Amino acid sequence: MVQVAILGFGTVGSGVAEVLTTNGGLIDQRVNDLVRLKYILDVRDFPDSPYKERFVKDFSVIENDPEVDIVVETIGGAKIALEFTTRALKAGKSVVTSNKELVATHGYELLQLAREHGCSYLFEASVGGGIPILRPLTSCLAANELEQITGILNGTTNYILTRMIRAGLTFEQALAEAQANGYAEKDPTADVDGHDACRKICILAALAFGRHVYPDQVATQGIRDVTLEDVAYADSVGYKIKLLGRAIRQPDGKVCAFVAPHLVPASNPLSGVEDVFNAISVTGNAIGDAMFYGRGAGKLPTASAVVADVIDIAKDLKRDRRNDWGPGSPDLVVSADCLTSPWYVRAKLSAVQARERCGDVQLLARNGAPAGECAFLTAPMTEPELLEKLSGVETDSILRVLA
Amino acid sequence: MVQVAILGFGTVGSGVAEVLTTNGGLIDQRVNDLVRLKYILDVRDFPDSPYKERFVKDFSVIENDPEVDIVVETIGGAKIALEFTTRALKAGKSVVTSNKELVATHGYELLQLAREHGCSYLFEASVGGGIPILRPLTSCLAANELEQITGILNGTTNYILTRMIRAGLTFEQALAEAQANGYAEKDPTADVDGHDACRKICILAALAFGRHVYPDQVATQGIRDVTLEDVAYADSVGYKIKLLGRAIRQPDGKVCAFVAPHLVPASNPLSGVEDVFNAISVTGNAIGDAMFYGRGAGKLPTASAVVADVIDIAKDLKRDRRNDWGPGSPDLVVSADCLTSPWYVRAKLSAVQARERCGDVQLLARNGAPAGECAFLTAPMTEPELLEKLSGVETDSILRVLA
Repeated sequence: MVQVAILGFGTVGSGVAEVLTTNGGLIDQRVNDLVRLKYILDVRDFPDSPYKERFVKDFSVIENDPEVDIVVETIGGAKIALEFTTRALKAGKSVVTSNKELVATHGYELLQLAREHGCSYLFEASVGGGIPILRPLTSCLAANELEQITGILNGTTNYILTRMIRAGLTFEQALAEAQANGYAEKDPTADVDGHDACRKICILAALAFGRHVYPDQVATQGIRDVTLEDVAYADSVGYKIKLLGRAIRQPDGKVCAFVAPHLVPASNPLSGVEDVFNAISVTGNAIGDAMFYGRGAGKLPTASAVVADVIDIAKDLKRDRRNDWGPGSPDLVVSADCLTSPWYVRAKLSAVQARERCGDVQLLARNGAPAGECAFLTAPMTEPELLEKLSGVETDSILRVLA
Repeated sequence: MVQVAILGFGTVGSGVAEVLTTNGGLIDQRVNDLVRLKYILDVRDFPDSPYKERFVKDFSVIENDPEVDIVVETIGGAKIALEFTTRALKAGKSVVTSNKELVATHGYELLQLAREHGCSYLFEASVGGGIPILRPLTSCLAANELEQITGILNGTTNYILTRMIRAGLTFEQALAEAQANGYAEKDPTADVDGHDACRKICILAALAFGRHVYPDQVATQGIRDVTLEDVAYADSVGYKIKLLGRAIRQPDGKVCAFVAPHLVPASNPLSGVEDVFNAISVTGNAIGDAMFYGRGAGKLPTASAVVADVIDIAKDLKRDRRNDWGPGSPDLVVSADCLTSPWYVRAKLSAVQARERCGDVQLLARNGAPAGECAFLTAPMTEPELLEKLSGVETDSILRVLA
């Protein structure tokens, strides 16, 4: 028998308990052993829960119980979750988590700890919710030198942008609607300012390129400044504005990683990813492009990914999964300044001035544009080159175009 | 050291040799051992090949060499490939293949043989080319009761349909273009009549639902009868015509599986999958919908999937991968007659007659429609119900709508 403890009985934790119960028969069959939930740790009381006999409040009960093989950490954050994960791994128990903040900030040391203690630290659910992405990246694409990863990694911002594009809502209106529908937190900072997407691209970059990328190394721009004017100009040429997390291998072994809103052409399948859906596009030197699409959040999709990791470990508790990566370094991550791409610019310029400054631009039009507003797409160049051409110009928006 | 033999030096076989060589360093690193190509079996001579020292013409050299751990079968077909696969497995060598015909017709017996001889039979490349789908289905989605699979599984037909939709080519013109571009064989039967998609949905259904589904159990309709009139009517309401392979779990444990062209609404991400790309949508009871997208064919994408299987086996030659399924049975597969969905009908009817026969239909319009032609979408019903309503009517097209 393989015994499991869940830390934190919130949305994801309770989803994990539900999936372990509802799909228990097929899970046992796939593991070829009995997988049983022994404890749930939570500071709160759940007197009406069907699992009420299993609740404990003291982590040391779990830590010291040799029957517990796998600890599922769904507490979130990087404080108490870090302490409990560390203690569980030191006790030789494998840990499965959906906690992107903890993996993005302490993944390297926790993976090392798991390796030292002959157990596993798995976190499929930390990126893309239910979308299988981390395991395909490390196993199915193992024959590839990975070149870049581009993802719509945050469902809240994708919902807001979709509503701006489809219903003409302003950012503020779309955010309020997302909050009313439960798609955005009361404090939406982590989502709309790109921090959530940043943590996820850090994890993807580390797995793809083999060294820890820290969130504070990754320039992160959210969607607060995206306006309906930009949406309309983009739409006039069939582009959609999407918040992308990107990681690109550099020839010198460094990694260019950043999060920013982009104009995405209709020919790119990422442009069709709407509402709360997420999608991650991966480019490898043999496979070319592959894309993974699905619900990036939600109780059962996320629990599905957590339980897949539990099943993987339960099948063979001591197998070396080699999913770790090397240490980071202060000079590992380079900024997107090196990255050439076309640009979308909206500025107080005449068409003639736009051409004088930026060369052979593609002018864009929208209904109701005020006199003196000019929007255009440039030829490919770097951001420093663009900013030099536009020096002294009053710009309203500058957005990168996904080439 | 782990030693590999490739059977058949055609497109995929030579791609496997190329990936093993080009990405050799990272493959060795991921396996934590040296992976080396020892033999290539082909009846032809390749005097200028960089691998010319490794060619053999007699399979028994490979079969009897205890140093060969993994045999890559890229011969295709179900004759000589079946013989060599059987002999390799009996000799305790794991086999990796891209051969969908062999897996779809003999998968059950070959998986049993692998299990009996303590080796593996893996075939990620047989479905979706480079797209990781089989491993995600069995590992990442292991916590789910899988409910249905819907796939654009054949790049040739998707290219033809895309050119009909985008460029207004007829089926015959688009097929000729696909042949000129190397996307279609001189004899295009296996692609355009749906047999290739049929084999792939058989493999997906067997993995998802646990019992062998044979190609001759799966009703298969290709795209020869799709006309530009149908494309235009579908487009008028934002639908795209796509050839879909579908497998749906039935409440009694049976499987509804079939291949047919469908009208796909714009809201479904499958509608945006164009040209030679493939995509597979999977529905599970926890994850909801997830979709996998990429190049469904091509030398290096397919080789990427083959080599991922080689790496998986090389990491642990004797691990029980439990990727097998149970035997099929004559009554396992049920026809799509049980499946309720809206329908697209084009027929010699007046609008009044269409409503009299089929109830509250949605009438469609196209430029240049001749008098007496009527096209419409029905409410959801089964195909037998629809055919009864249309009995005696001269119909030009009847296509299922993906609901």
